Amino acid sequence: MPVVVTDITRAEKAATDRLAEFGVATVHEAQGRTGLMHQRLRPIWRGPAVSGTAVTCTLPPGDNWMIHVATEQCRDGDILVAAPIAEAHSGYFGELIGTILKTRGVRGLIIDAGCRDVDELEELGFPVWSRSICAHGTVKETLGDVNVPVSCGETIVNPGDAIVADTDGVCVVPRANVAEVVKACEARLDKEDAARVRYQAGELGLDVNSMREKLAAKGLRYVTQAEYEGK
Amino acid sequence: MPVVVTDITRAEKAATDRLAEFGVATVHEAQGRTGLMHQRLRPIWRGPAVSGTAVTCTLPPGDNWMIHVATEQCRDGDILVAAPIAEAHSGYFGELIGTILKTRGVRGLIIDAGCRDVDELEELGFPVWSRSICAHGTVKETLGDVNVPVSCGETIVNPGDAIVADTDGVCVVPRANVAEVVKACEARLDKEDAARVRYQAGELGLDVNSMREKLAAKGLRYVTQAEYEGK
Amino acid sequence: MPVVVTDITRAEKAATDRLAEFGVATVHEAQGRTGLMHQRLRPIWRGPAVSGTAVTCTLPPGDNWMIHVATEQCRDGDILVAAPIAEAHSGYFGELIGTILKTRGVRGLIIDAGCRDVDELEELGFPVWSRSICAHGTVKETLGDVNVPVSCGETIVNPGDAIVADTDGVCVVPRANVAEVVKACEARLDKEDAARVRYQAGELGLDVNSMREKLAAKGLRYVTQAEYEGK
Amino acid sequence: MPVVVTDITRAEKAATDRLAEFGVATVHEAQGRTGLMHQRLRPIWRGPAVSGTAVTCTLPPGDNWMIHVATEQCRDGDILVAAPIAEAHSGYFGELIGTILKTRGVRGLIIDAGCRDVDELEELGFPVWSRSICAHGTVKETLGDVNVPVSCGETIVNPGDAIVADTDGVCVVPRANVAEVVKACEARLDKEDAARVRYQAGELGLDVNSMREKLAAKGLRYVTQAEYEGK
Amino acid sequence: MPVVVTDITRAEKAATDRLAEFGVATVHEAQGRTGLMHQRLRPIWRGPAVSGTAVTCTLPPGDNWMIHVATEQCRDGDILVAAPIAEAHSGYFGELIGTILKTRGVRGLIIDAGCRDVDELEELGFPVWSRSICAHGTVKETLGDVNVPVSCGETIVNPGDAIVADTDGVCVVPRANVAEVVKACEARLDKEDAARVRYQAGELGLDVNSMREKLAAKGLRYVTQAEYEGK
Amino acid sequence: MPVVVTDITRAEKAATDRLAEFGVATVHEAQGRTGLMHQRLRPIWRGPAVSGTAVTCTLPPGDNWMIHVATEQCRDGDILVAAPIAEAHSGYFGELIGTILKTRGVRGLIIDAGCRDVDELEELGFPVWSRSICAHGTVKETLGDVNVPVSCGETIVNPGDAIVADTDGVCVVPRANVAEVVKACEARLDKEDAARVRYQAGELGLDVNSMREKLAAKGLRYVTQAEYEGK
Repeated sequence: MPVVVTDITRAEKAATDRLAEFGVATVHEAQGRTGLMHQRLRPIWRGPAVSGTAVTCTLPPGDNWMIHVATEQCRDGDILVAAPIAEAHSGYFGELIGTILKTRGVRGLIIDAGCRDVDELEELGFPVWSRSICAHGTVKETLGDVNVPVSCGETIVNPGDAIVADTDGVCVVPRANVAEVVKACEARLDKEDAARVRYQAGELGLDVNSMREKLAAKGLRYVTQAEYEGK
Repeated sequence: MPVVVTDITRAEKAATDRLAEFGVATVHEAQGRTGLMHQRLRPIWRGPAVSGTAVTCTLPPGDNWMIHVATEQCRDGDILVAAPIAEAHSGYFGELIGTILKTRGVRGLIIDAGCRDVDELEELGFPVWSRSICAHGTVKETLGDVNVPVSCGETIVNPGDAIVADTDGVCVVPRANVAEVVKACEARLDKEDAARVRYQAGELGLDVNSMREKLAAKGLRYVTQAEYEGK
Repeated sequence: MPVVVTDITRAEKAATDRLAEFGVATVHEAQGRTGLMHQRLRPIWRGPAVSGTAVTCTLPPGDNWMIHVATEQCRDGDILVAAPIAEAHSGYFGELIGTILKTRGVRGLIIDAGCRDVDELEELGFPVWSRSICAHGTVKETLGDVNVPVSCGETIVNPGDAIVADTDGVCVVPRANVAEVVKACEARLDKEDAARVRYQAGELGLDVNSMREKLAAKGLRYVTQAEYEGK
Repeated sequence: MPVVVTDITRAEKAATDRLAEFGVATVHEAQGRTGLMHQRLRPIWRGPAVSGTAVTCTLPPGDNWMIHVATEQCRDGDILVAAPIAEAHSGYFGELIGTILKTRGVRGLIIDAGCRDVDELEELGFPVWSRSICAHGTVKETLGDVNVPVSCGETIVNPGDAIVADTDGVCVVPRANVAEVVKACEARLDKEDAARVRYQAGELGLDVNSMREKLAAKGLRYVTQAEYEGK
Repeated sequence: MPVVVTDITRAEKAATDRLAEFGVATVHEAQGRTGLMHQRLRPIWRGPAVSGTAVTCTLPPGDNWMIHVATEQCRDGDILVAAPIAEAHSGYFGELIGTILKTRGVRGLIIDAGCRDVDELEELGFPVWSRSICAHGTVKETLGDVNVPVSCGETIVNPGDAIVADTDGVCVVPRANVAEVVKACEARLDKEDAARVRYQAGELGLDVNSMREKLAAKGLRYVTQAEYEGK
Repeated sequence: MPVVVTDITRAEKAATDRLAEFGVATVHEAQGRTGLMHQRLRPIWRGPAVSGTAVTCTLPPGDNWMIHVATEQCRDGDILVAAPIAEAHSGYFGELIGTILKTRGVRGLIIDAGCRDVDELEELGFPVWSRSICAHGTVKETLGDVNVPVSCGETIVNPGDAIVADTDGVCVVPRANVAEVVKACEARLDKEDAARVRYQAGELGLDVNSMREKLAAKGLRYVTQAEYEGK
């Protein structure tokens, strides 16, 4: 029953590449606040944002065999997304497999489990977002799947989807939506730039975003300390 | 019922400013081991210690509206303390509101929930201590309070209290006690300096703090490995 | 009943010193995937790997008295291993005791509880692996043991065992096995070096480690997207 | 500095007693969704709802001395609220102190830390809501406060406030608001009773609460599976 | 963009109903150890196993509006699967919505977030598997989706899939596989019955499953205590 | 290297059997507050206290092979203690192996990992204390050890030690100390019985344990609310 799908369709490259410029928070907002992985996925070293196309695999507990199988399906511009099927904190990934992926032009790894060789991976320049840092070794005994839909970081990832990851976390953009999301990101940045200029000039979000009326309508009252205590 | 208190009394500025020199561990000790927030509050980037006067607000789950309301109550030398009323890990705060606060001279944010835009906030030089780093966006629908007593990091903060935060965590000093705590900090540092010199010369805490007699009285025995195994 | 064992036998120094060259992941693998502490033990600042011989102590909740007692049993080349007997997150250790240990030539602290004075300990160059960073002060009222077998990081440590710690975590090598583990590490590194060269040349783990036949035998199938969906 | 306040004012008894009839969820809603403790506070055995007036105390890590001091301040109709000042999981409370409190007419204990003697406390009929169940013993060495404002379960409790606790958790009602909250609870129950009858008859919340128009205005679309996939 | 899919295809009823007889562990094994939700999903009260067909919805943080929308898509034999898009611990579900679902013949709720009204839901006989028990109320402001694929309990659920839940947790069976999984369950139970008889007669798994040879081949040695210590 | 020690020496049976009468809290206190496992070890069903002699084994992540090996070393009056060497939450144990152990007269299982078949194990009357309840299946590929010292629940267990477990948790008594601990338990119970009678008569721990003088010496002050606020 376990399968490796060998001919997945990837999100369009130029648009996918641009996602790293916008970063996770902007992409997540631009697509309607969806696709964000759980915040337990953290970068193991502090580097720049990356984006790429997802190759996916599933991981049995304490078994990293399918990562080896998945490396062959990865190519330049991909990001490997490794999803455990049960919680386990072994170190499924280290510098040697990192070397394989780096050599193939893979841009990073997202793994909802443990990773090891943090120093060596930083030296190699291969970024990883993981749930834990753990040196415990894994076995190669049980099959899983490669390039099927997976749940990673409590979010669905389909193979070929675009992934963007930075210091704020990891976000998934469905393959078909990448161009549209890029446009929405640009619009959002323009709007944020305009707001930032006003904020730097001392204006408040209360005014820039016209919140005062709605706050009053909801019943917010401004009181003195004396009034507050007299309540 | 939700209120914004507009005329809070702040802790004395000169004394509050000095707290950052002493740091969290010393301040916490100097005031009798009280006021320390839970250790889950961590700095999102590594910067210097800060101290300032607390403006407080409460946060409904996934709703950051009251942070906007609170910005208007903040002024030079303040630290914003944002306390959720239920556990939620959204990103209630990012670089845009950081720009508002930075522009007003606010020295940092303490938030017992999620924060996003880590890289941008570091670039801006605006320090944040948070429970999680999470990009998930928030809504602006439900009111809370500004400048009322709150429970943040499992500790009570009254508006106007002094806050000190560094790599070790976050500590609250009640407004009325700041001058007295500064004095106790100075005394403590003097005592620690004296101990440090003796430790650097090779003395032990056992002798510097005269512990040996009390240890013996409690029944501590020094034994050889052979005696231990023969037991 | 509480005891301090004063004449423990330490692992051979030259071999113990070499463990830091290999690092935690390699040592752990080389001794058959045993001895790794739980991944919650994390370095409080980012420094080089260290190795040394274990002096052990137990910690009652919120009480760091036995750390003071243990300092006297520590000597050049040791690493102090402090094991709480109940979960508590106080800051049992800070810069002052760090100064005592540094002065005695101790190479680091492993503590399955809280630590404080992170900035000062980094400045001092004294590395610590801890479960949490917490400034809460401790008392000196209750005895424990020094240099008895302890459970630290969910792993047994006997006094005199070798400890190696780096960015990946902490590993224990039983005193009698250190020389043998060093040899196994060397063999492992040679094998990894050979694999790395092949990986850098574009080969896959699937071929370098001859996995394809076993994968097929277990039933792994390579399919097209169309075949997958037609399933 | 540590104090015991001996003459606190308690919430009105008749109104406080009624809170147990309404239960935690209703009381929490009726006072505007405030006052709920963190969900980690769980009943150690399954019993009926209780309500009473709060006597508060703080707990140093691993030290239950102040619980003994607090017992003397408790009287018939009270609930003891014990708030640690640092996270620790010892068993601060067991059947013997439970016997003291039960004898005095105290209705239960809320403790944001560990408790032991679960079977004996159930047999005694003394209910406890705690963060953990842990047998580890505590010492009696360090002072705290009794009947001062505390942060328990991430919520402020003032001595004399009303507490209600049941299988859903624990909620605090400020002393001055109890009568008003009782009225709001009654109104809420009436409204819920009316809704329940309609729900039992097969109506939906969508209609009973007139949600359809607002959903459409926000842009919710009803589609067939074919339309969804064609998207 | 948010949608409600109104005409999902459900797993075959007779086969789905049988899953409850087998229970979660057996179903999970019978389909190749896939489909199990994370162990944090726990029953809020202790009742019998249930199985049914999934109606799915997503939940914005602290917002239960889509549960109301989803109720209308539920019918006799369904189980509602509610998946948050960010971690939040509010009480999204209580007895009133439980009454709506119970009236429609819905067999239970799976929610990877908080639930309240535990006592009332047990009295109603409506089973819930949730991540937490929390009374904190939710708002109705933000849309999500109904009957789209979701990630719940770190597992993908497609609308119409079969769900089985019991004291051991929650498992998902893809719609197309239910009949086949039932057969595999029957075969597994037969095999287990045979093993149980032998175990009750005093045989060991080592012999019933012929493990001794493989253990020896892997190098397992049986030694005396004296041999072990002499090592 | 993996071994099974076949001739361990067990704690004396009559004394070990008595530990269940005293329960975990009393035994833990009676032996000087040592030996208590971490509070995450919880009973999977609510039954009476048990005590017995430890047979130990280690568990590789997601692999329960060594439990099968350990069953053969178990005999009437034993308790199996299964210690993972890395955190993993699979269901290492279920009703079938429970049947093997029950048939051999084993009194329970302590496992610092996952367990499944909760209903069946309760029906069988076989008690288990575990870290999690999880149905995820395990493999049988990697060796571990049986009847060597292990770290389980963050506590050292030597084979043959006495184990006592009840609703409060799990405690280990070193083999050589059991008789002495039984005596200390009896003395403790006598003292507690005497205290209980006085507590039931309305006396306080403050008086029964003569705490008032020490409290005053430490500086505790009794104040009125007016004095407290005037502070």
